Amino acid sequence: MTDRFQRGLENLKKIDGETGQKVIDGLQSISPDLARYTIEYPFADIYARPGLGLREREIATIAALTATGTAQPQLKVHIQAGLNVGLTKAEIEEIIIQMTVYAGFPAALNGMQAAKEVFSNTE
Amino acid sequence: MTDRFQRGLENLKKIDGETGQKVIDGLQSISPDLARYTIEYPFADIYARPGLGLREREIATIAALTATGTAQPQLKVHIQAGLNVGLTKAEIEEIIIQMTVYAGFPAALNGMQAAKEVFSNTE
Amino acid sequence: MTDRFQRGLENLKKIDGETGQKVIDGLQSISPDLARYTIEYPFADIYARPGLGLREREIATIAALTATGTAQPQLKVHIQAGLNVGLTKAEIEEIIIQMTVYAGFPAALNGMQAAKEVFSNTE
Amino acid sequence: MTDRFQRGLENLKKIDGETGQKVIDGLQSISPDLARYTIEYPFADIYARPGLGLREREIATIAALTATGTAQPQLKVHIQAGLNVGLTKAEIEEIIIQMTVYAGFPAALNGMQAAKEVFSNTE
Amino acid sequence: MTDRFQRGLENLKKIDGETGQKVIDGLQSISPDLARYTIEYPFADIYARPGLGLREREIATIAALTATGTAQPQLKVHIQAGLNVGLTKAEIEEIIIQMTVYAGFPAALNGMQAAKEVFSNTE
Amino acid sequence: MTDRFQRGLENLKKIDGETGQKVIDGLQSISPDLARYTIEYPFADIYARPGLGLREREIATIAALTATGTAQPQLKVHIQAGLNVGLTKAEIEEIIIQMTVYAGFPAALNGMQAAKEVFSNTE
Repeated sequence: MTDRFQRGLENLKKIDGETGQKVIDGLQSISPDLARYTIEYPFADIYARPGLGLREREIATIAALTATGTAQPQLKVHIQAGLNVGLTKAEIEEIIIQMTVYAGFPAALNGMQAAKEVFSNTE
Repeated sequence: MTDRFQRGLENLKKIDGETGQKVIDGLQSISPDLARYTIEYPFADIYARPGLGLREREIATIAALTATGTAQPQLKVHIQAGLNVGLTKAEIEEIIIQMTVYAGFPAALNGMQAAKEVFSNTE
Repeated sequence: MTDRFQRGLENLKKIDGETGQKVIDGLQSISPDLARYTIEYPFADIYARPGLGLREREIATIAALTATGTAQPQLKVHIQAGLNVGLTKAEIEEIIIQMTVYAGFPAALNGMQAAKEVFSNTE
Repeated sequence: MTDRFQRGLENLKKIDGETGQKVIDGLQSISPDLARYTIEYPFADIYARPGLGLREREIATIAALTATGTAQPQLKVHIQAGLNVGLTKAEIEEIIIQMTVYAGFPAALNGMQAAKEVFSNTE
Repeated sequence: MTDRFQRGLENLKKIDGETGQKVIDGLQSISPDLARYTIEYPFADIYARPGLGLREREIATIAALTATGTAQPQLKVHIQAGLNVGLTKAEIEEIIIQMTVYAGFPAALNGMQAAKEVFSNTE
Repeated sequence: MTDRFQRGLENLKKIDGETGQKVIDGLQSISPDLARYTIEYPFADIYARPGLGLREREIATIAALTATGTAQPQLKVHIQAGLNVGLTKAEIEEIIIQMTVYAGFPAALNGMQAAKEVFSNTE
């Protein structure tokens, strides 16, 4: 276990909490190498960078995954992560509504559906 | 000219500055109706909402347009808009780098190219 | 309830029928604001425009949602809407087959699957 | 030259006119096989089908290519094709405006830019 | 039943095995014409071409469907097809991991999930 | 300069040749950090993995970038890379033709255009 992996794992826990751990555990059984890269590159290399706060990073990720519309499971993980690092439900709703402008109404409706599922588990 | 259009135009000027005005002027000559909707819905309805600051809204938009990779001209407008509402060049670079994780390296490289063109005009 | 909202609601009922109402009801419980925008902008502003018939508008929407492939629930709503405003099942099949050319076979196969589900509910 | 190829070539000329011929000529010099498939499958197999008129087929194609946003050269060919088979400029503008709803404002703005370029060549 | 259709059906069986047959059977009940095109164009025209081996063709298809992320059912068919024509599970894992670079981590994670489901049925 | 960076740089040179170096040089002047990640993650971590040959890796990348259609500059780099690691022009043409099936004809036509530009520089 390298330093880079260790640092990634700590960031993953801080940001994604239990959900992140579950994603990695599920991935370990399919592809340990992809699990390792998912910890190392995004979480040790990128999220650890000081130039942008975690709250702002989750705004960017929630926006991007809502807009592309091809990563519903990952969008849910990051809506939860957004709540973990200090975004309010109202702010997440706001980001998703804004995506009507850049990716159309279906993308925003499907993003809001993901938010509904995450929010209902946190009440 | 309705109140909604008027409010949209003011927000457009505040956010996009001269660039936004040019986009609308160019659009007027092709489709005055699309020009009007572009002012009314995004700028009067969405960007005017109080739940999220303009700086945060531009983080979301820059992330989304970098990730989808099909809106290079609009990405440039919003990188400029990001600078206008308080994002630093380093923060915009940070958002684009983060998109390697969610949309791959080509999307981020093309986003960074857009940033380079905007930044070089503002020096 | 503004005139714009009222006009949107009437268009939504005319086009999407019961299905549209259900979509909006489901959305009300998650994000009343997104529900309102979904009624106002697409249905009061756009579908109400006189330049293109509803039958032609649904051809455009079914084609677009089949091609992008990221909005399966909305595609089903609009296949039903297509039937409501006068498209035949054979015409909808035709639009989806044509999308093999512009978005590939998987997009058309998934669009046809959506059509099958809608058609089986209308027999 | 098979019957299928011959039929495709005739349909291509009827729909796309000179522009279509130029596309195929350009393609011949790169990949004669892709040129042949482009004539045979879309134009002999699909556009020849009787279930939908050419005007309606071009509505579908213009909508799909505007929404996906990755085929600007082909979108221009089909905006021209739309004019050839009876769509008015105002109807094409209408289809593109409608795409704001399903693919966002940047997709529609870029589609309208393509329309502007085609329309300015036909005045 | 034309020669082209017959040749396509044989290639489909060779490449996709039982799974391919099921896809076509399911499709027959919805759209016999789309079923026919799906056999004729991809399998009689394209996969029959001598310039690239079936193993290499499946590398291309698995990569493309993982990257676009909008064709999960078809990706599973082609992961099975990859195994049928000689790719190992480790090689398929490798292709999917590589897609982190070109389409981001969520696309690769969802592709790996598809591989897991196919692999677990073949043990 | 870490070992990982050094290894990535060597792989980049082996695969992309001069073109790769130019991409990185251009990137250095915009974002040295993104340049570093582009060398380290794709080229030191992924392309260095033993499970798949470079020729097969380029098949995967050319297929994916043709299909997504949002990375024309990177597609050109990888068509050149494909030639560098042993793919013939005919094989690259074959991969792109196959993408008509999975991403539609416009994606393949635009991919073939990229190939034409690369091939004409190597004659």
